[in-house]
Amino acid sequence: MRTILVIGIGAGNPDHMTVEAIAALNRAEVLFFLDKGEQAADLIRLREEICTRFIKKPGYRIIRADSPKRDATRADYKSGVADWHEARAQLFARMFTDELGEDGIGAFLVWGDPSLYDSTLRILDQVRAGGTVGFEVEVIPGISALHALTAAHRIPLNAIGEPVLVTTGRRLAERFPEGLSTIAVLLDDGTGLASVLGGELDIYWGAYLGTPDQMLRAGPVREIGAAILEDRRVARLRKGWIMDTYLLRRRPPI
Amino acid sequence: MRTILVIGIGAGNPDHMTVEAIAALNRAEVLFFLDKGEQAADLIRLREEICTRFIKKPGYRIIRADSPKRDATRADYKSGVADWHEARAQLFARMFTDELGEDGIGAFLVWGDPSLYDSTLRILDQVRAGGTVGFEVEVIPGISALHALTAAHRIPLNAIGEPVLVTTGRRLAERFPEGLSTIAVLLDDGTGLASVLGGELDIYWGAYLGTPDQMLRAGPVREIGAAILEDRRVARLRKGWIMDTYLLRRRPPI
Repeated sequence: MRTILVIGIGAGNPDHMTVEAIAALNRAEVLFFLDKGEQAADLIRLREEICTRFIKKPGYRIIRADSPKRDATRADYKSGVADWHEARAQLFARMFTDELGEDGIGAFLVWGDPSLYDSTLRILDQVRAGGTVGFEVEVIPGISALHALTAAHRIPLNAIGEPVLVTTGRRLAERFPEGLSTIAVLLDDGTGLASVLGGELDIYWGAYLGTPDQMLRAGPVREIGAAILEDRRVARLRKGWIMDTYLLRRRPPI
Repeated sequence: MRTILVIGIGAGNPDHMTVEAIAALNRAEVLFFLDKGEQAADLIRLREEICTRFIKKPGYRIIRADSPKRDATRADYKSGVADWHEARAQLFARMFTDELGEDGIGAFLVWGDPSLYDSTLRILDQVRAGGTVGFEVEVIPGISALHALTAAHRIPLNAIGEPVLVTTGRRLAERFPEGLSTIAVLLDDGTGLASVLGGELDIYWGAYLGTPDQMLRAGPVREIGAAILEDRRVARLRKGWIMDTYLLRRRPPI
């Protein structure tokens, strides 16, 4: 039986690698790197740095593939995602058959933690459901962007005994979730943040977390929200991509 | 200036230690271990195992202290917590003054990630506000119970593009949060789970995550919820303590 390792490699800082993730990397015969648009070159360089630094076993292979792109122009978000997942499932199945022997061990290196707004696990389920190639999955948890953000700001995620909503920029822009002291936002292209600029909220923002380019900002969203949007626009132009995340906290606290 | 390192040591498995956490451990001159009731002996043993395995620098000291207990009989939860934090802040200030030189480096080893339902960061803020002892804080993120749970079950945390509410057993028992596809529950003494036994939900449950005692269960909460409550009651009796966490997912999915 083939084994597919889904390894959380942390949120940008190679020192986020866990002992478990390092051991898993060293078990893999084949590492699958999927290309992902503008940020690809930088992120692949970071992945290669992690491999060079932590893999002591010689002879592993890196297989690169162009990841099918999601059609962002599709009106129906969910069916657009479904088609995209299906295209990736077919690619995965082909790679496993072509590149891994019957008992081969392959690995995906996932930024942050594999459970948080990452599609690898879902696509693997889909490949298995397709029935053309059998494999076991092992998941190695990683330092997620959420925890990297709160660590960089030295703040708790939750208010005392209070819940936290983890959501996306898209959902935040659709409707502000009322009655919560803390909202953590991922995958925001700026529209989520733009929708809360008038709120009585503190923001704790971070971009390129854990990397030498890390940017941090904290303060009332009315005062610094617009500047953060400008910062992320400029940074995105300069580097060609941006990954950022933030917490919003009600003021005064609930 | 003194430095206090708040180190996330992962959710029970010493292999969750990150490269960054190991380096931080090796910078600390003094490790502060706070006792915490019934689970204390097992958790302190795990912390000692981590220190023995990962600290290569000789001469570090471990300072043990009895952590003041929260008065759980207090009717007002928040003022009970506030008094408890104040008692702990005074203890921390005393320990820093007594045990650390002017440029000393101390560390707290926090289970999971320091941002998630842990009071260390808040108490350090309170110590600093007290003004009797100055220090810098550095936070090292860790593998949280949330990510350990989803990795063990090999599932994503969120449904596609959907938010996740992270909450406590106490809040879940007070009122079920409607309109969400996924709810992650921490710090549940069983009352939260007992309150959702009739729900159209799937549960992904784990206890003693990452340790040799790890227990996992997944299925419809109507079918296995009561058995999980019984399992946790028995396990708690046997070991003297339990730490568990779970995801609830709406069925059919939103």
